[in-house]
Amino acid sequence: MRRAILDKNDRLAERNRGFFRARGLLVLNFLSSPGSGKTTFIRESVRRLAPDLKTGVIVGDLATDNDAQRLRESGAPVVQITTGTVCHLEAEMVARAIKQLDLAGLKLLIIENVGNLVCPASYDLGEDLRIVLLSVTEGEDKPLKYPPMFQSADVVIISKLDLAQACGYDREAALANIRRVAPKARVFETSAKTGQGLDAWREFLLQQQQERKALDSPA
Amino acid sequence: MRRAILDKNDRLAERNRGFFRARGLLVLNFLSSPGSGKTTFIRESVRRLAPDLKTGVIVGDLATDNDAQRLRESGAPVVQITTGTVCHLEAEMVARAIKQLDLAGLKLLIIENVGNLVCPASYDLGEDLRIVLLSVTEGEDKPLKYPPMFQSADVVIISKLDLAQACGYDREAALANIRRVAPKARVFETSAKTGQGLDAWREFLLQQQQERKALDSPA
Repeated sequence: MRRAILDKNDRLAERNRGFFRARGLLVLNFLSSPGSGKTTFIRESVRRLAPDLKTGVIVGDLATDNDAQRLRESGAPVVQITTGTVCHLEAEMVARAIKQLDLAGLKLLIIENVGNLVCPASYDLGEDLRIVLLSVTEGEDKPLKYPPMFQSADVVIISKLDLAQACGYDREAALANIRRVAPKARVFETSAKTGQGLDAWREFLLQQQQERKALDSPA
Repeated sequence: MRRAILDKNDRLAERNRGFFRARGLLVLNFLSSPGSGKTTFIRESVRRLAPDLKTGVIVGDLATDNDAQRLRESGAPVVQITTGTVCHLEAEMVARAIKQLDLAGLKLLIIENVGNLVCPASYDLGEDLRIVLLSVTEGEDKPLKYPPMFQSADVVIISKLDLAQACGYDREAALANIRRVAPKARVFETSAKTGQGLDAWREFLLQQQQERKALDSPA
């Protein structure tokens, strides 16, 4: 049963992917624990990208539109998906949400998944890059304890570095654990509060979008 | 399908509950996001309870026995459940884990669930009390954004209060949100690092255990 649901999701995710490619859209799927700072990080990213890259955001939550409201402060169009009791976003939910976005001129689509370090790892949404956040407050061993999520990451964002000292964050241990589980993932060390690391992240996205927009086939 | 799984789980949870009652065991199910401090809080609780209440611990994780090792520092017997890709503990897993615990003289059983603020809410394990942790680093709106978990809580533990100032934690907002979603839950404001709030928590558990051990029927 679960297998059938995942098979169906995988097909719809590929349809999303083809659609995004035809549009030259770079699509990011943001995943993490609840409270690791996804919304703030996305809001600050969009602010910094706004002059160069028109960005839309789709945000998933079990309940409330708190995050959507906070994200609108960035000036980007935001569509909220309320999942009720469902612990992850699915490709079909994203396909429906897209209908509510004005795609004209859009270059970047950011999807903020439900805060959950387990289940969303199994659901492809058709994204180009999977971005997993790890806050310094969560403990350095999380990549080892939640391997499916971190193994699936193209990028790992270490967030809330401004709290590193207060938490006794062990940078070497965290980086070693990420490398062990996700050796190919790009790692950015950031604080959305102080702006640390956000310029490098911005440059990375601009470059990724340049590469994406040259695609003229679904392959 | 999901309904059938939950029905089966609910039956096995009641069997666990009857077993625990016959043994005079007080059983706690600890739930929270990854990284909110469950393991440290449980370790410090067990240390403080050790002179009065013999305690056993069952700990669930997708991978690694890091938490089990840290919990053994408390001196309590610890059984690890490794769930692989399963995002929650089920009553049947707990029933099997019990076989590995020496129950003689045991008065308190603490179950540390998989770090996940969504799915474990649906799975009764046969516990007496459901304990949900909310770390001050996670943001005050989590009870509103993850209502099924907080609605199911008998107790909400606010953890990592030592980081409150560094995080700009808004105590009034957090307490108001908890009261809104879980008006009947007991709330303890704690720091496992400084010991704040742990005496009140200890007294609460001793009293709960006194009440439980008087039961002489499964009702």
